[in-house]
Amino acid sequence: MKLATLKSGGRDGMLVVVSRDLGRCQPVPAVACTLQAALDDWPRCAPQLAEVYAALNNGAARHAQPFAEARCHSPLPRAYQWADCSAYINHVELVRKARGAELPPSLLSDPLIYQGGSDCFLGPRDPIIALSENWGIDLEAEVAVVTGDLPMAASPAQCASAIRLLMLVNDVSLRQLIPGELAKGFGFFQSKPASAFSPVAVTPDELGDAWHHAKVHLPLLVHINGEPFGRPNAGIDMTFDFSQLLAHAARTRALAAGTIVGSGTVSNRQGSLHGSSIANGGVGYCCLAELRMYETIECGAARTAFLKFGDRVRIEMLDGDGHSIFGAIEQTVAPCPDGS
Amino acid sequence: MKLATLKSGGRDGMLVVVSRDLGRCQPVPAVACTLQAALDDWPRCAPQLAEVYAALNNGAARHAQPFAEARCHSPLPRAYQWADCSAYINHVELVRKARGAELPPSLLSDPLIYQGGSDCFLGPRDPIIALSENWGIDLEAEVAVVTGDLPMAASPAQCASAIRLLMLVNDVSLRQLIPGELAKGFGFFQSKPASAFSPVAVTPDELGDAWHHAKVHLPLLVHINGEPFGRPNAGIDMTFDFSQLLAHAARTRALAAGTIVGSGTVSNRQGSLHGSSIANGGVGYCCLAELRMYETIECGAARTAFLKFGDRVRIEMLDGDGHSIFGAIEQTVAPCPDGS
Repeated sequence: MKLATLKSGGRDGMLVVVSRDLGRCQPVPAVACTLQAALDDWPRCAPQLAEVYAALNNGAARHAQPFAEARCHSPLPRAYQWADCSAYINHVELVRKARGAELPPSLLSDPLIYQGGSDCFLGPRDPIIALSENWGIDLEAEVAVVTGDLPMAASPAQCASAIRLLMLVNDVSLRQLIPGELAKGFGFFQSKPASAFSPVAVTPDELGDAWHHAKVHLPLLVHINGEPFGRPNAGIDMTFDFSQLLAHAARTRALAAGTIVGSGTVSNRQGSLHGSSIANGGVGYCCLAELRMYETIECGAARTAFLKFGDRVRIEMLDGDGHSIFGAIEQTVAPCPDGS
Repeated sequence: MKLATLKSGGRDGMLVVVSRDLGRCQPVPAVACTLQAALDDWPRCAPQLAEVYAALNNGAARHAQPFAEARCHSPLPRAYQWADCSAYINHVELVRKARGAELPPSLLSDPLIYQGGSDCFLGPRDPIIALSENWGIDLEAEVAVVTGDLPMAASPAQCASAIRLLMLVNDVSLRQLIPGELAKGFGFFQSKPASAFSPVAVTPDELGDAWHHAKVHLPLLVHINGEPFGRPNAGIDMTFDFSQLLAHAARTRALAAGTIVGSGTVSNRQGSLHGSSIANGGVGYCCLAELRMYETIECGAARTAFLKFGDRVRIEMLDGDGHSIFGAIEQTVAPCPDGS
């Protein structure tokens, strides 16, 4: 099943069911007006949404309309929880080298997680607004899950069965603000502004064999200014799967329906290398910080700049037949209208 | 104006207007069913809520019912953002000494803030559930504000005028989990389980002269197991006021209506001391970690234990006439029913 939220009807938008080919959609006000409402009452809503989905795919939906990714907000325009992990160790190793930070000794046994802001996500086609290019504006392409309710101390198996939806994320990061902020000891805040999610959220069964062991085994495709930048496989080098990440998040507290948990920047080693650009025959990167660190290691200095105003980022994932699963995140970096 | 949320009507409860003396309340479904809905549309809702409030205080409300704090959820049972600061430098100095951590050099110029979980707050009379007493269960008594919409880079003056409501908070902390978690560099997650808020949220004008310069100039009263434990003044030793804290939070991103920002544990110096217990003639503390650190400084070792199962915490604030402004947070620590 595929779900999206159109930018109409207020802060939470309007829930629509989307056909598998992303061609048509249908509002479902009789089932749930918003995605959060559907998640709040999933056992009742999901079968009814699945009926609409089947009708859409069969061409039998009576109130179908053309689906346009450009009309979408993030599936949850605002959420009660967005927690992002850093499950790809290659990314952790590279970015910590980049800022001269030590690797946590518990790296392979204790997931890294931070609480992100979730009060106003960007839509998948909204600009990335920043006051200054000097903040080191970077993308971070990731996979995320949306959960149902989970009790405190839920087991990984419980967590796996509570995964309702999958999405893609651009976890926008302000690299130049990170070292100062983390030095204060309280984690990210200013350095992690609003994230954007893929136009469409899908149930795990939509991925078929590509979803197993609570990981997405497909390349995550990143383009910057129309050029291929990354295609690492989200199922490779992920140290903790989503069931483990969720169990970590639920260790001391319940997680409520609609909780979003991210994988962290997808990142693949390349043999003995910490990565390799697509131009060099590698799978490339899902953030600029990794390429810059790789350049530093190889050439003594970073050559690639962070994102500038006007730069365009595209994040997408294709199925085995080359069709977009989630629609594309496509964002342009832009200055704050009131900014200095 | 005073507002509360009764535990009925679904996950977000039912908004009621509460009389100034906390004696009566009235549901307002024709205005807004939930507090978030009122905050989403504040310019329309606030005048109508104020009319009901005036009628309640005049004894003219036609659908008034007795108000019981025990029936309340936190004013926002779940929120889209909960960001907690640490604005009382005395607290920062003490807890960092306690865990042997360095003071950030920017302590007096750059507020400390972390993103907290907001998907399922505790009600003001709900138990504090934990799997283990060994987690170092502690209270943190604080003041918090609820905001309207704020754009990215909002000025302190803009922020001050967007403060809609004030509340009290118990920002429950698991002290023994903090050092390991902060050592990983991503801030708090497991060490900050669900927080609880006061039964009643009030507009700043309810505090009269006690609300000025975006600070609450009243003692915050803490009892543990019925014994007075702290009464520091929330207006004293607060290095950054709420307008500065909000401007800091909004530096790189917009804040959406219903954002909750906390002050951090209220803490007063006592002359040249980092605090002093009520038994010693001081104003006491708003968390156990401070007392334990003070004992360590004075006696070489902490003597007071963290909270144990069965321990009771009460947090309240009184007006000049001795009347409760927000109602009381009253929580008992309890083991997780399914816990090991």
